[in-house]
Amino acid sequence: MLRVYGMSASGNCHKVRMALEALGRPYVWTEIDPGRGETRTAPFLSMNPNGKVPVLEIEPGTYLPESNAILWYLADGTPLLPTSALLRARVLQWLFFEQYSHEPYIAVARYLRKFHPQPAAQRAHADSKMDGGYSALEVMEGHLAREALFVDGHYSIADIALYAYTHVAGDGGFDLERFPAVRAWLRRVQDQPGYVAMPA
Amino acid sequence: MLRVYGMSASGNCHKVRMALEALGRPYVWTEIDPGRGETRTAPFLSMNPNGKVPVLEIEPGTYLPESNAILWYLADGTPLLPTSALLRARVLQWLFFEQYSHEPYIAVARYLRKFHPQPAAQRAHADSKMDGGYSALEVMEGHLAREALFVDGHYSIADIALYAYTHVAGDGGFDLERFPAVRAWLRRVQDQPGYVAMPA
Repeated sequence: MLRVYGMSASGNCHKVRMALEALGRPYVWTEIDPGRGETRTAPFLSMNPNGKVPVLEIEPGTYLPESNAILWYLADGTPLLPTSALLRARVLQWLFFEQYSHEPYIAVARYLRKFHPQPAAQRAHADSKMDGGYSALEVMEGHLAREALFVDGHYSIADIALYAYTHVAGDGGFDLERFPAVRAWLRRVQDQPGYVAMPA
Repeated sequence: MLRVYGMSASGNCHKVRMALEALGRPYVWTEIDPGRGETRTAPFLSMNPNGKVPVLEIEPGTYLPESNAILWYLADGTPLLPTSALLRARVLQWLFFEQYSHEPYIAVARYLRKFHPQPAAQRAHADSKMDGGYSALEVMEGHLAREALFVDGHYSIADIALYAYTHVAGDGGFDLERFPAVRAWLRRVQDQPGYVAMPA
């Protein structure tokens, strides 16, 4: 049985839940709270020396960290990942875009405004993430003005990875009203079979 | 003929050169200088709307951005990428580690200290990247104390991706003397067939 060590309110962790539910794979979820130091314990660091959630337990003793590597591992050989070399590279293009150009702005602003113990003290820090986050949203808007889904018109882990923090970008202070194609795409993701909402 | 649009002194771009040389693939290199605005022109943005190098021209009109997606595209089906699902996921684990936990600290500190037009004004900014960079180096040191190369003892694109900025971490003010396993691994990478140094 697959086991996910994750924090349900984390977009990086929610990606894994979305993929497992879309694929109908059974799994167990073990809730981990980084805010309580639960990613810095010796047992956790033995699973992921980088001290971050999510971690997928493939079998006892075999642990895979990095949300987008987990998505790839779960999706390969399923409809969530195309088969041609170029389309697979396009999926990876968007997965790396998400981790480098999107998550460090949109997820971090959300964390600082919504989950940080002293959000008022983090206001300037959160504000410094807005330009980068809006740049990422503009890239997405331009692509989604021409495409229904991120890669080749088929629902893939590229959509799952980018949905995870985009659909809660408002928590970070981002206004999605300016991005109608992004908002239409969010609804298309929500209409997919096996869609699961982020736990409250 | 493959064409790379890249800046030779960029680690992200140098990864692509390293993979092409290791594979013996012919290619043309078109030098792009982001500092002169060459990634913000309309022709460049039509290749990569995210405005970053490197971009691989697979054929005229087909462009792939994101350095680690390019590495995967070039390496799939070659000895630079393993065939088993779990080992492929391990390669991706390290590629995402590189882009999220390593490059934003080590590459950015290097840029601010070595390439920024006003490095003195960026001193505090560069200094703020050191803790994150050393954390990444510690994760690498722990892994390389037990393993000769990043995945399964075989040279792969995980080694190429992590080599690119680690071998020039000194430019960012990082002291690699504290990381003997990392230094031994750098030498093993340099001993690989087809190894190419970063152009001066």
